Amino acid sequence: MAILSDVATEVLIPIAAIIGIGFSIAQWVLVARVKLAPSQPGASRSKDGYGDSLIEEEEGLNDHNVVAKCAEIQNAIAEGATSFLFTEYQYVGVFMSIFAVVIFLFLGSVEGFSTKTHPCTYSKDKECKPALFNALFSTVSFLLGAITSVVSGFLGMKIATYANARTTLEARKGVGKAFITAFRSGAVMGFLLASNGLLVLYIAINLFKMYYGDDWEGLFESITGYGLGGSSMALFGRVGGGIYTKAADVGADLVGKVERNIPEDDPRNPAVIADNVGDNVGDIAGMGSDLFGSYAESSCAALVVASISSFGINHDFTGMCYPLLVSSMGIIVCLITTLFATDFFEIKAVKEIEPSLKKQLIISTALMTIGIALVSWLALPYKFTIFNFGEQKEVTNWGLFLCVSIGLWAGLIIGYVTEYYTSNAYSPVQDVADACRTGAATNVIFGLALGYKSVIIPIFAIALGIYVSFTIAAMYGIAVAALGMLSTIATGLSIDAYGPISDNAGGIAEMAGMSHRIRERTDALDAAGNTTAAIGKGFAIGSAALVSLALFGAFVSRAGVKVVDVLSPKVIIGLIVGAMLPYWFSAMTMKSVGSAALKMVEEVRRQFNTIPGLMEGTGKPDYANCVKISTDASIKQMIPPGALVMLTPLIVGTLFGVQTLSGVLAGALVSGVQVAISASNTGGAWDNAKKYIEAGASEHARSLGPKGSDCHKAAVIGDTIGDPLKDTSGPSLNILIKLMAVESLVFAPFFATHGGILFKLF
Amino acid sequence: MAILSDVATEVLIPIAAIIGIGFSIAQWVLVARVKLAPSQPGASRSKDGYGDSLIEEEEGLNDHNVVAKCAEIQNAIAEGATSFLFTEYQYVGVFMSIFAVVIFLFLGSVEGFSTKTHPCTYSKDKECKPALFNALFSTVSFLLGAITSVVSGFLGMKIATYANARTTLEARKGVGKAFITAFRSGAVMGFLLASNGLLVLYIAINLFKMYYGDDWEGLFESITGYGLGGSSMALFGRVGGGIYTKAADVGADLVGKVERNIPEDDPRNPAVIADNVGDNVGDIAGMGSDLFGSYAESSCAALVVASISSFGINHDFTGMCYPLLVSSMGIIVCLITTLFATDFFEIKAVKEIEPSLKKQLIISTALMTIGIALVSWLALPYKFTIFNFGEQKEVTNWGLFLCVSIGLWAGLIIGYVTEYYTSNAYSPVQDVADACRTGAATNVIFGLALGYKSVIIPIFAIALGIYVSFTIAAMYGIAVAALGMLSTIATGLSIDAYGPISDNAGGIAEMAGMSHRIRERTDALDAAGNTTAAIGKGFAIGSAALVSLALFGAFVSRAGVKVVDVLSPKVIIGLIVGAMLPYWFSAMTMKSVGSAALKMVEEVRRQFNTIPGLMEGTGKPDYANCVKISTDASIKQMIPPGALVMLTPLIVGTLFGVQTLSGVLAGALVSGVQVAISASNTGGAWDNAKKYIEAGASEHARSLGPKGSDCHKAAVIGDTIGDPLKDTSGPSLNILIKLMAVESLVFAPFFATHGGILFKLF
Repeated sequence: MAILSDVATEVLIPIAAIIGIGFSIAQWVLVARVKLAPSQPGASRSKDGYGDSLIEEEEGLNDHNVVAKCAEIQNAIAEGATSFLFTEYQYVGVFMSIFAVVIFLFLGSVEGFSTKTHPCTYSKDKECKPALFNALFSTVSFLLGAITSVVSGFLGMKIATYANARTTLEARKGVGKAFITAFRSGAVMGFLLASNGLLVLYIAINLFKMYYGDDWEGLFESITGYGLGGSSMALFGRVGGGIYTKAADVGADLVGKVERNIPEDDPRNPAVIADNVGDNVGDIAGMGSDLFGSYAESSCAALVVASISSFGINHDFTGMCYPLLVSSMGIIVCLITTLFATDFFEIKAVKEIEPSLKKQLIISTALMTIGIALVSWLALPYKFTIFNFGEQKEVTNWGLFLCVSIGLWAGLIIGYVTEYYTSNAYSPVQDVADACRTGAATNVIFGLALGYKSVIIPIFAIALGIYVSFTIAAMYGIAVAALGMLSTIATGLSIDAYGPISDNAGGIAEMAGMSHRIRERTDALDAAGNTTAAIGKGFAIGSAALVSLALFGAFVSRAGVKVVDVLSPKVIIGLIVGAMLPYWFSAMTMKSVGSAALKMVEEVRRQFNTIPGLMEGTGKPDYANCVKISTDASIKQMIPPGALVMLTPLIVGTLFGVQTLSGVLAGALVSGVQVAISASNTGGAWDNAKKYIEAGASEHARSLGPKGSDCHKAAVIGDTIGDPLKDTSGPSLNILIKLMAVESLVFAPFFATHGGILFKLF
Repeated sequence: MAILSDVATEVLIPIAAIIGIGFSIAQWVLVARVKLAPSQPGASRSKDGYGDSLIEEEEGLNDHNVVAKCAEIQNAIAEGATSFLFTEYQYVGVFMSIFAVVIFLFLGSVEGFSTKTHPCTYSKDKECKPALFNALFSTVSFLLGAITSVVSGFLGMKIATYANARTTLEARKGVGKAFITAFRSGAVMGFLLASNGLLVLYIAINLFKMYYGDDWEGLFESITGYGLGGSSMALFGRVGGGIYTKAADVGADLVGKVERNIPEDDPRNPAVIADNVGDNVGDIAGMGSDLFGSYAESSCAALVVASISSFGINHDFTGMCYPLLVSSMGIIVCLITTLFATDFFEIKAVKEIEPSLKKQLIISTALMTIGIALVSWLALPYKFTIFNFGEQKEVTNWGLFLCVSIGLWAGLIIGYVTEYYTSNAYSPVQDVADACRTGAATNVIFGLALGYKSVIIPIFAIALGIYVSFTIAAMYGIAVAALGMLSTIATGLSIDAYGPISDNAGGIAEMAGMSHRIRERTDALDAAGNTTAAIGKGFAIGSAALVSLALFGAFVSRAGVKVVDVLSPKVIIGLIVGAMLPYWFSAMTMKSVGSAALKMVEEVRRQFNTIPGLMEGTGKPDYANCVKISTDASIKQMIPPGALVMLTPLIVGTLFGVQTLSGVLAGALVSGVQVAISASNTGGAWDNAKKYIEAGASEHARSLGPKGSDCHKAAVIGDTIGDPLKDTSGPSLNILIKLMAVESLVFAPFFATHGGILFKLF
């Protein structure tokens, strides 16, 4: 047996979650100390412990209106974001309610809504709870997952819109202060989300156990609904938020930067508030839901496989909770890691920002490796068996340690490759920038080629991870590898959230008419955030690939499938159609962004043409109208791609059965990963190629610039094309592949009993 | 037994091939009647039967120099194309020789170069020829396939460069005359290639039979080398030709159209000859080799499966030759179809061109359905058995008829969908054109979305075809479905070759300084050709998908694999890496085109800047230098992607074994098809969106134009980006998926014996 007792496990998990939440609150308090009100001359400033002089003072001006203006803009952004999310949640709420009924009816029908117990599938000698109650608890955990996802996204947005103006104000004191404010705000979100996800899951398991008792098979079957709920919500969050943010961004850029020649975030641009709102609902709320979904799903996949392995059969609670213990350790490790950025070292110059963020990844990965070793040693018996499609496979605790670690390190490799292909410090992006010499067309050709090329190493890393962890511990190995990649999620999310906060801070500085030097500081924060955002996307995609494979494995186990043979026509047609789905989905999301952007362009043009004095700065633009256009477009347009993803497993499973559905899942997985990685990296590279020309930091960069040159115009076109690729269709594909897999898993008992109607008929 | 006797089969196949070759020569004679020399005033013209008056005469000018100039330009193009192909063949020749040695050594080593006979794999009671001789004959048929492919491509190029100036001259008499000349020239290539491929294969089988006698297993194993040879050559032809043509095209456009504002094909542009040469070596020679490869491979796949089915076991020669008989019937059907375009009806107006070409597809498909029924009835026994991964499956002749027909009709559906998404007569392309209003970025976003969307229906058509034909006759069904799609290859190729010929004719008219009205006529021919070229590419991809699946099936049969289980780690890593290969390959080819185009741009700019009087038309550009740049770039750059495709199966099979290789093949197939279709259609749509704006045929189109407007400039950027997508990386992917499959098939005995070294070691 394991060293750690069941009681210790019961206690340690909630403690870790509570420490995470406490840390998150502490960070919030620190951020809140930056006051969004004009400071009392002299006295009060020294009280808050920040002795630095403000830029305005250095420059001899001390305009208190600026602070008030920042507060006003922040309010406008927060209001827009809140109102959008409420509208979104209303629509999604209706959908979720309907889907909850569908889950209950489909799963309830498996044994004809009977309330009788039945022999367990994997331990034939035991009695398991009736399918009707599995249906009920699955529905409950589905709703729980959806609500947790909503809370995660919403809180993230709240924190981000609370922090952005504060970051702007801190930038007056220096780049280090601004960095810490933005990073702490990111950490609030990262830790809250990670701890919250863990805590809710832990509570749900314990509550469900009161009903299920010894029937762990049923218990963890029902728990998978949690992953489905989280991921469904994430789908709409990503797609809706992604369309919102890019419609506003593309629309604002096309008229503002290209036609009117005014800078980004210029307050005269009517779409500027919508653009900033978009960063919060897309990159923050959407991404928060997305990563929460990944985390919930990989935990559920690991739990459901473990429940039919020796942990479940022998009722070894500590072993069973290994995935949760890894996540608990992750929270503690990330907490220590965060201190390296905020307390142990201080950022003094712009060039220290990016290394500091990258150090976060290395430190958390290195510490986590030790943490995983500790958990594996304490929580696992030396030897145990894992379910492997009909047979049990013997695994050691050190084998499992290797599985989790390989996932963790594969994530780091993917992160670094992503950085290499999207940061303008390296030759790939510089080559793309150089291609702008001959115009937008060569820029786009080189950018597409870069995206395709950037797929190679991540895929090899994922393949290696899959092979090793699969060989050691079958599908359980894959699930814990995914969990390993996500174990440093708190740090990953901190870094991810830091980016849009800095971006917004820059926008607020521009709109509040603050000094040029402040904008320079926030731009430096933003540029570093851009690269780390790309790294975060790499993580998200890599973990999605592993998660969906683990879910796929859990699905086939649960559906009683022993073999998914490519040489059977049912599987091969599933495979080819599944590989097509990412394209269908991307076509919808890309077109949605395009159409919504066109509408935005028309509105912005209309305002410039009809509002007198707008260009001169005397007239006031109608921001609300642009916010409304983005809101309406994204709400309307998120439904078809959402329906595609949610309905495909249901239709395929019901009409064609589990074999074809397995093919669809495998096809969507292997094709979707490629499309997602290449889309994200192409978009990131174009963005940074443009920034490379704008910054003009090297001889080469200056020869391409300055802003407004032909080269720069070509780079802006590339950047605009990349927007929907990297922020709408690319990241949504993660959810496509995960969600279809988790949905299949939840509905597996139904498909196994009633599925394949078409083939049964003919 | 079948109605058709073996002797009749032996006679009918070569007769059909010879009829095809005869028809092709007859068409050539008709084209050759257009004299590339100034006509004798009055008298001689009436002699050649063409009574129409020339445009020059109508317009009161009759400049005999024009004819001489056309001849001169045609010579320059033909010389450039010939010299490129010779250089290409030299390099590829070296590679082929080395690869031939590799084939011999690898296959020879299967039984340690022993010259002893061994018991057959599938009929254990019989003795089969030694593996060493299989190695030898495989090598011979590999070389035979490569040579036939070279001949096909080279002859196609010769015919095209013979016909282009003649089409220009005929355009002086009217659009109908020009159409017939271009179409007849296309037919020369189509029929020569189809007949040649059939004849060489037929002769090879009969010669090999003299050695193999009753050992049909060995005989048809060796014959698969023919497909590998054809396809390897096609790979280099497509990639090399594709890079050549697009480097020249993109380079010429970027400086000429965008910077210097001179029209396309303007003789002042130094890259103009290289551009026209490119059409002939890429679109004609490359595509000829490609489709020949598909044809050879689908025949080989069907033959190798049949050889281990009842046809082979019972030595039923007529049944065995069913694939060849279908192709023979195809030649006759296409011959009749061609007469509908050239003799039964006459084109009088521009708007009749496109319908006439589309009618070709419908007529040939309808007639071929009857033809297939006839062949299935005459050549097949009512019932026979087909090998299905270890067991024999019973099939009827009408079942097989259904397999071939579903392939044929699926091809037509794919063709029509392609047309819908790439022709500017329908809303998808018009929407893309409309997106140019807001600039190049939205144009590109809409174009990419269109390409993704265009994948949906073709994939469903392919999936349906696979399911039906697989269910009826296992992998043999898929192979004959592919053959069905390719059975009207003569007509398909005629239409395909017609496009570049018309394109060149327009270029020659421009360069020779002919009347504006002639250019209008050739442009109309070209526009129709553009759409049909897209249809042709749709066919090529659809058939490639089926062919490679059939080859995959033949490979697993021959490697003795019974199950390819997605739930095994060896297969899943193969699947995900295989799905990545199309991206790696596209990254290489896209980047190659980009870099080569940049070099071309520099050279063209240099010439404009240094050659005095070039812009004014008094200085003469150095065409040869541009031809050299394209040649050098394409020869150098075709090696890495070529090596990727050729080495992957060898490395994976040798190191990881047949299970992983099966995964790689399946992954590359399901992912490559999507990339290929979307790339081709996106490129085609951008091209036609630009043409839509230029032509200004509707109120909407005129509101976007005219040439030189901002919208048009945005459309030109899209067109340029689409060039490498639709003419280099997209179509090359067909070959990637086919070639890896056929190579695995040829090396299957080696992999089955010696493969998987890495897994054996650890």
